[in-house]
Amino acid sequence: MPVTIRPVGPADVPTLVRFVHELAAYEREPESCLLTADQLHDALFTSAPAVFGTVAEIDGDLAGAAIWFRTYSTWTGVHGLHLEDLYVDPAHRRHGVARALLADLARTCVDRGWARLEWAVLDWNTPALDFYATLASEPLHGWTTHRVDGAALAALAERAAPH
Amino acid sequence: MPVTIRPVGPADVPTLVRFVHELAAYEREPESCLLTADQLHDALFTSAPAVFGTVAEIDGDLAGAAIWFRTYSTWTGVHGLHLEDLYVDPAHRRHGVARALLADLARTCVDRGWARLEWAVLDWNTPALDFYATLASEPLHGWTTHRVDGAALAALAERAAPH
Repeated sequence: MPVTIRPVGPADVPTLVRFVHELAAYEREPESCLLTADQLHDALFTSAPAVFGTVAEIDGDLAGAAIWFRTYSTWTGVHGLHLEDLYVDPAHRRHGVARALLADLARTCVDRGWARLEWAVLDWNTPALDFYATLASEPLHGWTTHRVDGAALAALAERAAPH
Repeated sequence: MPVTIRPVGPADVPTLVRFVHELAAYEREPESCLLTADQLHDALFTSAPAVFGTVAEIDGDLAGAAIWFRTYSTWTGVHGLHLEDLYVDPAHRRHGVARALLADLARTCVDRGWARLEWAVLDWNTPALDFYATLASEPLHGWTTHRVDGAALAALAERAAPH
């Protein structure tokens, strides 16, 4: 069955939200995922979006989705693409959906002159790691992401000088 | 001497490019940094930019800079801020420049309802890690970024179906 790739549309949002929650459950943090359909709709379909969606269909069924945003590298001097979520519906696995989505994102990068396609993987997620190894992706060992959020973010913001 | 924070302007670009190259040298990869002033100018001052700059001044001197872009978290359902580069001119260190820049970015997040302020740190960069620990930032151990670029990106793009 052929896999069709297209940009996300408003009617896809409820299924995307289901995908995101299913992925969070797989990543063992279902309670961390608070995404609502209204939030995702508003972020994707605003006039100057900073987040984008690409979906895969099989026979008219939404089979998988990628949610991504643009990065910028001061080493390459050009933009890149960060894949925030990649998910394939369990009913449509092993039909090349993830590979078709990633190939489409790579095509977007090449067409627009963007240098890097990136995503974060949980170190215990062996099936994902095995799959990504087939794409010749390189793990960036030696770099750790640091995050400030919640009360720490509010406290840091309080120290800002007024503009 | 008070630190003043403001958005980057076109006249700051040459100094920002110097900062970026100095930071790449400190990170032991000077040859990986190819950024030019034209690239950075065009990315920052286009009509719908996807990368932004915030600078710190001391007594009219450009003392430090932050280059950043917007992220999107499908767990929080809102945007965040990824700090790509943070640099303080050696002549202006130990005057609170980095802290003032980070506080301003935190304020930007809070003002806009963004949930996370994030950046990547090299694991051997102890001075940076010691500083970030004072901000109550949390290292995201267990997640590794994977990247496809160069020939692997072109090869993956070749596998995309035409739109």
